[in-house]
Amino acid sequence: MTRPLLPLADAAPAERADAARNREALLREAVRMVAEGGTSSLTMECLAHRAGVGKGTVFRRFGSREGLMAQVLDLSERDWQASVLGGEPPLGPGAPPWERLVAFGESRLRTTLLHADLIRAAGDATGSRSVAASSFMALHVGHLLGELGVAGDLPLLATALLAPLEVPVLVQQVDREHLPVERVVAAWVDLAGRVVSARADAGRR
Amino acid sequence: MTRPLLPLADAAPAERADAARNREALLREAVRMVAEGGTSSLTMECLAHRAGVGKGTVFRRFGSREGLMAQVLDLSERDWQASVLGGEPPLGPGAPPWERLVAFGESRLRTTLLHADLIRAAGDATGSRSVAASSFMALHVGHLLGELGVAGDLPLLATALLAPLEVPVLVQQVDREHLPVERVVAAWVDLAGRVVSARADAGRR
Repeated sequence: MTRPLLPLADAAPAERADAARNREALLREAVRMVAEGGTSSLTMECLAHRAGVGKGTVFRRFGSREGLMAQVLDLSERDWQASVLGGEPPLGPGAPPWERLVAFGESRLRTTLLHADLIRAAGDATGSRSVAASSFMALHVGHLLGELGVAGDLPLLATALLAPLEVPVLVQQVDREHLPVERVVAAWVDLAGRVVSARADAGRR
Repeated sequence: MTRPLLPLADAAPAERADAARNREALLREAVRMVAEGGTSSLTMECLAHRAGVGKGTVFRRFGSREGLMAQVLDLSERDWQASVLGGEPPLGPGAPPWERLVAFGESRLRTTLLHADLIRAAGDATGSRSVAASSFMALHVGHLLGELGVAGDLPLLATALLAPLEVPVLVQQVDREHLPVERVVAAWVDLAGRVVSARADAGRR
């Protein structure tokens, strides 16, 4: 939610806070529509109808369907990050680091698959969001690897664990090769286990 | 090189073989130009000038600069695959599997960085080439993991080892974060070592 940093005049801040609340409500409705019927069900017309506002309002708020998709993606990503930072364990704080790492991998994998359609629908409107999300995830995974006592180049090991969770890899495996999501999750947990359990110099044969 | 499957008439096949040879020669020249001066140095005009042909010939052969870039990329990729399949060890056959895996990782990483600019310049003209290249690499790495006696879901472990070698990951690390290539190579070798050396059920803590 965007709020003015300073109160400006009497009427304007109230209007802007109101607009922000309306935008947030429209976005929450859009997230629900995508969860129920996929990205194809989310059109500017249907969103306006479901939210009981004019189509012009939806266009004014989001500019275009791509802009709406980008903001739905952004909200969903923020919700997910919040659940990693402060949500229920084992994804959130409070569980042992290995359990948090496993929960992170499975949750991210499923979130990425959900987001893949949104990213496609948002097109260029996604901007630099994915870089910011990647650095959040790299910091989190690097932190968990440190807690697990893993020795090595932790930032790059974190990147290596995140790379198989990227959209193109998962879309190829699940959407094109039709691998069961459970198998992809199990393989990621196996990979993480190998990274965590290996002695630092055990690789050479 | 494309050759007609059946001889058609007297003149036509000779012309087509000739055209294929000319196209290959233009492509070899284009690969040299990219190696010397980067993708920005490769324009249709300069290629025509260096090859001593008319600009119209270059456009007829490749359609557009994007089309040319896609074919330069394709030739470079085929050259690289040939060196994996039948080139000198340790990248090619004849070296122990761990040495081949290390040579593969380093070679692919450097090739991907070289290709990243070409892929950008080729844009949509790259088509489905990257999927074909990915499945070649996944088969090769899975085969080496098998030779190394690794237990587990080898196709998915291979995919996990290939994911950090994808263009967006390496471009982020090397072009944007300015990590030294040697560090990224070392981290990949460390990752591969962990995958190879781990006992199959050692991950759980």
